[in-house]
Amino acid sequence: MSLSPLTNRLVEALTVLPGIGRKTAQRMALYLLEHNRNGGRQLAKCLNEAMERVGHCSQCRIHSEEPLCKICRNPSRDQSLLCVVESPADALAVEQSGSFKGIYFVLMGHLSPLDGIGPEQLGISLLVDRAAKGEIQEIIVATNPTVEGEATAHYIADSLREFEVTVSRIAHGIPVGGELEYTDGGTLNYAFSGRKHLD
Amino acid sequence: MSLSPLTNRLVEALTVLPGIGRKTAQRMALYLLEHNRNGGRQLAKCLNEAMERVGHCSQCRIHSEEPLCKICRNPSRDQSLLCVVESPADALAVEQSGSFKGIYFVLMGHLSPLDGIGPEQLGISLLVDRAAKGEIQEIIVATNPTVEGEATAHYIADSLREFEVTVSRIAHGIPVGGELEYTDGGTLNYAFSGRKHLD
Repeated sequence: MSLSPLTNRLVEALTVLPGIGRKTAQRMALYLLEHNRNGGRQLAKCLNEAMERVGHCSQCRIHSEEPLCKICRNPSRDQSLLCVVESPADALAVEQSGSFKGIYFVLMGHLSPLDGIGPEQLGISLLVDRAAKGEIQEIIVATNPTVEGEATAHYIADSLREFEVTVSRIAHGIPVGGELEYTDGGTLNYAFSGRKHLD
Repeated sequence: MSLSPLTNRLVEALTVLPGIGRKTAQRMALYLLEHNRNGGRQLAKCLNEAMERVGHCSQCRIHSEEPLCKICRNPSRDQSLLCVVESPADALAVEQSGSFKGIYFVLMGHLSPLDGIGPEQLGISLLVDRAAKGEIQEIIVATNPTVEGEATAHYIADSLREFEVTVSRIAHGIPVGGELEYTDGGTLNYAFSGRKHLD
């Protein structure tokens, strides 16, 4: 290998990025060194700042450098409608679809007893506390339609049974634009069991 | 958009990387924030160090934080055989093929009068100076087989005509594993005009 030691270390460091292997990292490192050193410096600065200062919203646990995130602070959001998701990326996907105007609660994972992730790690007691306050009318559980996501959804529904709050689950089925022919069995099962009457 | 301002700035900064759009940058930023803050800090450190300290070898212009790069310093490399390439990435590709044991000269581009890139910008006088010293026996011109690369190769050959040095050009033709059917006309032209006698 003819890369200089520092370049080599940069290539190694770039492979921490998801989906970036050694070959792509090498291309990135050489590109930055040859064509955009200022961009590289700026990236280093932003990385440092974000890694040190971005924390979690104390209420919904979305990434935020302030104690309360933009969504929780926003008075025009419906504070009686709460969407439970597994990760900040999931919340972001819901946000970007524009289909939800309530607030969020991020579990930061799903129940996974083998990995030592139980209800405490997911902060489900915080969720229960908020339901107990009586301000929330509906909790939409939008965990992923995986075994773990379903188990987590059922656990949440059980935990909230005693409160005056509607607990709902997002619909699973054939995605818009999808074709039956290429849809997996699990999704088809959901699609059939979740069928609706046509009026 | 529900990303916090700092996260947003990190996403923007990540898009300086080649081939990384906003969507991928967002996935990378969230991944680092959620799963690998230490990796992110380490990346920031390596980026800073590399951007500030990696320069160019004074002899061959390959990236190096020392005045002379590893290849130029290596006594087991053939100092009488010099390969001219357009970029450090090209030199790296040749290095990784293991087919060359001489030293390099990186032009950092190709002749492109419209962009104001002439022989001075490519350091061709440095190359001529080295040829004039008489230590180099053969100069292999490995610029890309593009119009600009070919023009650069011819310019270099002309500049070196007066010296006692063999100037050669790497072969162009059908790549190993390639098929005639899917080869473009330009490459086929090269392959036919560069044909060899079978012994």
